[in-house]
Amino acid sequence: MDDHTIKRRILGVDPGTNIMGYALLETELNKSNVEVLSVLQMKKLPDAYSKLKYIYEKINGLIEQYHPDILAIEAPFYGKNVQSMLKLGRAQGVVIAASLHAGMEVYEYSPRKIKQSITGNGNASKEQVSAMLCHMYPISEHIEYLDATDALAVAVCHHLQHKVVFGKSTANNWKSFIAQNADRVVK
Amino acid sequence: MDDHTIKRRILGVDPGTNIMGYALLETELNKSNVEVLSVLQMKKLPDAYSKLKYIYEKINGLIEQYHPDILAIEAPFYGKNVQSMLKLGRAQGVVIAASLHAGMEVYEYSPRKIKQSITGNGNASKEQVSAMLCHMYPISEHIEYLDATDALAVAVCHHLQHKVVFGKSTANNWKSFIAQNADRVVK
Repeated sequence: MDDHTIKRRILGVDPGTNIMGYALLETELNKSNVEVLSVLQMKKLPDAYSKLKYIYEKINGLIEQYHPDILAIEAPFYGKNVQSMLKLGRAQGVVIAASLHAGMEVYEYSPRKIKQSITGNGNASKEQVSAMLCHMYPISEHIEYLDATDALAVAVCHHLQHKVVFGKSTANNWKSFIAQNADRVVK
Repeated sequence: MDDHTIKRRILGVDPGTNIMGYALLETELNKSNVEVLSVLQMKKLPDAYSKLKYIYEKINGLIEQYHPDILAIEAPFYGKNVQSMLKLGRAQGVVIAASLHAGMEVYEYSPRKIKQSITGNGNASKEQVSAMLCHMYPISEHIEYLDATDALAVAVCHHLQHKVVFGKSTANNWKSFIAQNADRVVK
């Protein structure tokens, strides 16, 4: 069996300091299903340390429960100031280290790459990305937090980047693959 | 027994991205001993993820082996650029979360505060801090990496900040306490 045909579980995480979005995408060949789509609310936690501890325990809980193979996170936009970058780095560090320790692979995608791969437009708004995801998957169009769809977006981005490509075919689904490779179909 | 008389183990960490210094200081009242003083070398690891994983596993190993009560780390100097701040944040996040998860308290001290508390001069050089530590503890004056003494420095800073103060006495050891409080000594 080709390695590409193996089921993979992608954990997408958008690690903010007040809200952390997370999503679990189960993929097999070019199919994918959203298994989890939610957020951690951390605004009411008393300090930055409590938040990091909460992230650590939640991530380890998700890993234990769902056994994801891959972590996909958004690479930061470097325009932020140094203080917020440190906070973001700490939150990301927790998520990345817990994932690596569990033997998962880690991938980062730039905001532009994520938007491009989902909407075809690297400058799409969060709302446009969310709307496209609601079109692709049976998820509610009224998700309370865009951070959850942000997390799903990076998982979907990883999936789209690693879709099965047969030889040099640019087909991205069975129908187009067969259309492009009629000579390879067993009659 | 007064809470202040309890033995405490302070893990000092200087989490760089290529070298991580660490030190374990055992304290009781105003006494303290250096139990561990070393560095993790990560320059040869192939990428940033391998480094985070290594930090995570090393910190958890140290916690398991020495059961420290407190993590003391250096608060970053915000003059650094956003990219190095993100890297530093990731390394710190790993160390902080593992410590919190183990039930440790976490304290951060600014570089200025650390230098001030050890040498009396907030602008002291790394070498001056290291020389003072070599004077205070039976450690080699030729420590290969200043990162190890940086880690010890923050642990010692925490210890000095939390030394026993009897009432409003400014005494910082038994001898000066007794000299200042002759009337409280049981004859």
